[in-house]
Amino acid sequence: MWNDLRVCFIGDSFVAGVGDPQCLGWVGRLAAGSYAIGQPLTAYNLGVRMQTSTEILGRWQAECAPRFPNGSDARLVVSFGVNDTTLIDGRPRVAAQQSAANLSELLAQSSERGVPILVVAPPPIDDAEQNARTAGLDGHFADICATAAIPYVRVHQPLRDSAVWMGEVRAGDGAHPGAAGYDELAALIRPHWREWLAR
Amino acid sequence: MWNDLRVCFIGDSFVAGVGDPQCLGWVGRLAAGSYAIGQPLTAYNLGVRMQTSTEILGRWQAECAPRFPNGSDARLVVSFGVNDTTLIDGRPRVAAQQSAANLSELLAQSSERGVPILVVAPPPIDDAEQNARTAGLDGHFADICATAAIPYVRVHQPLRDSAVWMGEVRAGDGAHPGAAGYDELAALIRPHWREWLAR
Repeated sequence: MWNDLRVCFIGDSFVAGVGDPQCLGWVGRLAAGSYAIGQPLTAYNLGVRMQTSTEILGRWQAECAPRFPNGSDARLVVSFGVNDTTLIDGRPRVAAQQSAANLSELLAQSSERGVPILVVAPPPIDDAEQNARTAGLDGHFADICATAAIPYVRVHQPLRDSAVWMGEVRAGDGAHPGAAGYDELAALIRPHWREWLAR
Repeated sequence: MWNDLRVCFIGDSFVAGVGDPQCLGWVGRLAAGSYAIGQPLTAYNLGVRMQTSTEILGRWQAECAPRFPNGSDARLVVSFGVNDTTLIDGRPRVAAQQSAANLSELLAQSSERGVPILVVAPPPIDDAEQNARTAGLDGHFADICATAAIPYVRVHQPLRDSAVWMGEVRAGDGAHPGAAGYDELAALIRPHWREWLAR
């Protein structure tokens, strides 16, 4: 018998799977892959386009509460950061220090509620300067997760080196890949996802 | 050019696609089908297991607000009712009159906010007595939508007559089908979905 596994995936447009004509994104690919190896689960995709870490921190508890019934194996996967590093009037929408503080606060809140958490790095887009800022954030996030003993999946650099991901992003809207890009992202996360689910 | 189409699908476990090993459900199938004919969209799946019409009415505005940015073609698809007709201590979780009032209120709220809405009937499960109650609700919902000039997709009876749907429901957890059942449900909704999107 398996337990009643409920996983909320909270984050931005990459979590939502924007751009994927198959409408699965990396979240749907991970969930379907778990079914395929005999681990059914209820996956709730709570990615929202354009959202920063501040907005995601502000809604995760309200949206997860009705999706985490008593007695379930309730878990959280989170990914954000690209919208934080977008410039508006020459300044990032969320300063790096605040992005880091938001992640720390989210880890603290999930720990307090006893919800295991897996963090996925913000991916690269077709903008080298923004990617440099996002890579900086990725370093902060990795440190925060290491300190808190939370698994953190470093997808930013491998995707920046991926001709498939970067090619689809350029061919698309400049930020989101298509199906093959999401395949790659899911493949990077999958071993960490499985190890984490087995805990 | 297409407009920036954002569709929130709000409802229960059938909306969430519970039981589908492909992790698409009817929502993912409709969205992917729209991509395939050249109509990309952002689909937000807000189905939550076990929820009644009362619970769905209570959260739709809070959850849709961050998903409907200004300037987008924001639309709502809703489906509920099966959890309303579940008996607890011999009484339905939500009385039929209240379910009907909840749908009316949701239509009024979406109309007030200028959000076009499509309503999908509650499907049958492997329980003839509960199906009879759900079919009663289906009749009320059809009347309410007809009066309000809102499209209502009558999937309950065709699925009750479907060997694929009923077979998968029985082979599964007694309520949810697998991939083939969701294929059938998506096929029933698709013509109405496309006609509605074209408005």
